Amino acid sequence: MPTYQYPKSQELFRRAAGVIPGGIYGHFSPAPLVPPSAYPFFTAKAEGARFRDVDGNEFIDYMCAYGPMVMGYGAAHVEEAAAAQRRLGDCTTGAAPVMVELAEVLVDMMPAADWAFFAKNGADVTNFAIMIARDATGRSKIVMIEGGYHGTAGWMQSPGHHGVTDEDQHHVVRLPWNDVAAFEAVLDRYPNDVAAFIATPYHIPTFADSQMPAEGYWEKIQALCRRHHVVLIVDDIRQGFRLDMAGSSAYFGFTPDLTCLGCVMANGYPISALVGCEALKKSATRVCHTGSTWFQAVPMAAAKANLVKMGEINAPQVMLTRGALLFDAMVNIARTYGYDLKVTGAPSMPYVRITNDESLMLHQDWCAECTRRGAYFTPHHNWFISAAHTDADIQQTLETVDEAFSAIKSKYGTDFQN
Amino acid sequence: MPTYQYPKSQELFRRAAGVIPGGIYGHFSPAPLVPPSAYPFFTAKAEGARFRDVDGNEFIDYMCAYGPMVMGYGAAHVEEAAAAQRRLGDCTTGAAPVMVELAEVLVDMMPAADWAFFAKNGADVTNFAIMIARDATGRSKIVMIEGGYHGTAGWMQSPGHHGVTDEDQHHVVRLPWNDVAAFEAVLDRYPNDVAAFIATPYHIPTFADSQMPAEGYWEKIQALCRRHHVVLIVDDIRQGFRLDMAGSSAYFGFTPDLTCLGCVMANGYPISALVGCEALKKSATRVCHTGSTWFQAVPMAAAKANLVKMGEINAPQVMLTRGALLFDAMVNIARTYGYDLKVTGAPSMPYVRITNDESLMLHQDWCAECTRRGAYFTPHHNWFISAAHTDADIQQTLETVDEAFSAIKSKYGTDFQN
Repeated sequence: MPTYQYPKSQELFRRAAGVIPGGIYGHFSPAPLVPPSAYPFFTAKAEGARFRDVDGNEFIDYMCAYGPMVMGYGAAHVEEAAAAQRRLGDCTTGAAPVMVELAEVLVDMMPAADWAFFAKNGADVTNFAIMIARDATGRSKIVMIEGGYHGTAGWMQSPGHHGVTDEDQHHVVRLPWNDVAAFEAVLDRYPNDVAAFIATPYHIPTFADSQMPAEGYWEKIQALCRRHHVVLIVDDIRQGFRLDMAGSSAYFGFTPDLTCLGCVMANGYPISALVGCEALKKSATRVCHTGSTWFQAVPMAAAKANLVKMGEINAPQVMLTRGALLFDAMVNIARTYGYDLKVTGAPSMPYVRITNDESLMLHQDWCAECTRRGAYFTPHHNWFISAAHTDADIQQTLETVDEAFSAIKSKYGTDFQN
Repeated sequence: MPTYQYPKSQELFRRAAGVIPGGIYGHFSPAPLVPPSAYPFFTAKAEGARFRDVDGNEFIDYMCAYGPMVMGYGAAHVEEAAAAQRRLGDCTTGAAPVMVELAEVLVDMMPAADWAFFAKNGADVTNFAIMIARDATGRSKIVMIEGGYHGTAGWMQSPGHHGVTDEDQHHVVRLPWNDVAAFEAVLDRYPNDVAAFIATPYHIPTFADSQMPAEGYWEKIQALCRRHHVVLIVDDIRQGFRLDMAGSSAYFGFTPDLTCLGCVMANGYPISALVGCEALKKSATRVCHTGSTWFQAVPMAAAKANLVKMGEINAPQVMLTRGALLFDAMVNIARTYGYDLKVTGAPSMPYVRITNDESLMLHQDWCAECTRRGAYFTPHHNWFISAAHTDADIQQTLETVDEAFSAIKSKYGTDFQN
């Protein structure tokens, strides 16, 4: 079977590079797609769990727009609700009634939610969360995990990144994941000055395996936060609604003070939410935070319809089950070729890599071979499953994976490094 | 004529207050709408330059969603382009070709644009602009105008606001508007440490008259920036495309290094843009800045179609002309009642107040009387005209204004303070 070629993507990218920094920037940049020649850059049409690029190649999509798509591109229940709201109004003077209804859905659905606040980006609500924590505690320090991602504001980025100042980082303290003692040491070092602890429900470092919470980790972190009056913030923007409709904290058995949610709740319509406990509602009211399109009603209607539908089918369980099926089978196929495929994180959004080559070149080549055959796998980012991935998608993916391992084996053998 | 009542808005607001901080937060909060009982809080339907609230009252809209709506709610040319793109894909894996086309439209349209970068919020691009300036110059200080608004990140807010730390403000230097000498003094005080000067094209302080640039102001600021290698940033999020399709800097005759644009370009679809000069493209490429829905294609398609259409009819000129007609007539009506209505800023987005009472109570009451009769005027924010405001809208507004002055006059007379 001939593998995909991307002449139109590459031509359009050259045109893009003339008028857009980097041609395509941010997390959509082709830079980490190695080799870039294996990947399409521009999407012509997306439907269900698949998309077609500008060259007409079709892919089963394991990035799901890097997370936002969870129920299939163009999912009818979302688009119908969006269209109905759009006929009434979208970005208007005055809030839409659906804002209240959506807040009520979240408050009903999530034990950690007494109220909800809506914005656009995930980073809008991680930023808001730390401002609330600072206002409520009168403290300054924010404890986060080394390699944790909460957006691209100055304080969220690693020190020394382009455009980031020392002052941006002044109150940020970074700890290793799963290290309770390190948090205790910070609480000792800054008595009465730690405003918040913020982390994802499990750790998703870039270019590295995902790491689940150790037994008792969240319970201990929660206890320390309560004892020292530190605001406990879960950044559930990536994992949210891919583990549990009640929030990933419910999945891991704890209750944060604030939870950050992303546009996965609206199947990709641009909306984020901060939900929180009653005790922080006053600070959430008096910290000034807003944006021109934060009252946009269509994404709220989309989110409301989508959350209800996801709850009805228990979409996280669908994705966890389907992901486990797929990745277990992939591990087995890898083994038949003599490769060790390591799958970490939740099966609904795993980080996958071939361990046989620490340089990751073999892994990159295997991802490229899969992608060139229609299973879109990026080499250095966690993947995403949606509830729209069908049995046929999974079957076809497994065949593609088999072919790709075969191609890799003829190139590298199994003794790449040993 | 009986004036409007809002029982359903008020009931829904009580429900909102249970599950949303402040009920409605941010710039949509009813708090500055005095008295709140004169205003609707929730919008049921919006079309053209009008909206209907949940109680069935209809308003001619002079807030235009606080700026984003510029060509009328539901404008056909925007909705058709959006719908066509939506059938292909919106928030997908991979960028859409329309991103490149939109960047090309902006680069062709604006002399200050050699490239374009897209995000969601206005604050996404004001933040990005200062990170680029810091990266490109290796400097830290950001000079802004006292009372200037660039979003709600820590550095943008006034010192001492809830949730803001001293370190957020450490590198921010605030100057009075139209004060070139003050900028020179800052350049002397921090030789080789001023990264950027950021301001709106003219000054729009909150709760105060708008202030146009003094003769030669921008020319002098530009010259100082060039001489001292300071990045000149125009925050054109509010004024952009309400003064000139080539950017408000073109209207005032200067060329910034970076220009921040908001969702007015997409008639309210959520998208913002930073456009800039070739010399800063490298920094714009290497500063890390991204968001989950920044590649959303529908707002890009909406923006492309809307910018082309706005260019065809010279929408800024339409709004400036129509605004001048309306506000000149309003000033005259005010005068017949013995009131002085002061209109500052551009006629397409003026700040309007009755000067006869410095407490602004009379002004608030007059805005309330207008709103209760269907001309939606807020007392403490600049207003917005759209190209969809018709002659009939203006005629009806003038009649409403007359009635409201009559009501105010019977309550206060003309000697409120004298």
